[in-house]
Amino acid sequence: MEASDLTIVDRVRGEGGDGPCPHRLVMEHVTSRWGTLILIALLDRSYRFSELRRAIGRVSEKMLTQSLQTLERDGLVHRDAKPVIPPRVDYSLTPLGREAAEQVRALGRWVDERMPAVERAREEYDAKRASA
Amino acid sequence: MEASDLTIVDRVRGEGGDGPCPHRLVMEHVTSRWGTLILIALLDRSYRFSELRRAIGRVSEKMLTQSLQTLERDGLVHRDAKPVIPPRVDYSLTPLGREAAEQVRALGRWVDERMPAVERAREEYDAKRASA
Repeated sequence: MEASDLTIVDRVRGEGGDGPCPHRLVMEHVTSRWGTLILIALLDRSYRFSELRRAIGRVSEKMLTQSLQTLERDGLVHRDAKPVIPPRVDYSLTPLGREAAEQVRALGRWVDERMPAVERAREEYDAKRASA
Repeated sequence: MEASDLTIVDRVRGEGGDGPCPHRLVMEHVTSRWGTLILIALLDRSYRFSELRRAIGRVSEKMLTQSLQTLERDGLVHRDAKPVIPPRVDYSLTPLGREAAEQVRALGRWVDERMPAVERAREEYDAKRASA
């Protein structure tokens, strides 16, 4: 393990603090079910709230609002409330959010590509257990 | 959004199935608190259970066992129980696990590098809220 990875391990595990450390929380925000989907969707363009909700699907208004607020607080998503009637709110990625989204998309693509291999491994594991 | 990202979004959100889809579960396994730490540690070398527990820190024996089993079932971690006395069990990454670990390490490094920017964003967000 390189020294820099030891640092990551130390920080991700939140050594020395009470409760989850801030690093762990950021990791959880960007890899959460809705966090991941919001970031990947916004890589393409900005979305209005209702559009984003349709694009993501099966997310409640409350959960989407909370997830967007979390990402906004972390500085990953920019919320632009236009002073027009009817109100219009656009969500987009900040430069920092774009970096996060690219990492998460790479991970999502990896999962997507490797899912058949994971499923084969699970079948083998379960078969071995069943026959043991 | 590219067509391939729409596929990721569809799959990650588990459209059409009951409960979390398999893609979401793999994402959760590799980005979970202990999953992340196990994968990053094993990028360097194989570990015995007790060594790994010390390296990761603050993980209960039960949680580490469960996390390793989950990663083993997904085909990411190889468990090698040597028929010696006293028993010796080594854990290492499979080639698939190495790929996952590299993705997760990249994300961990990004969080590590960008943590100060995230913290600044949070302070600004909270200050704005407090003064609103």
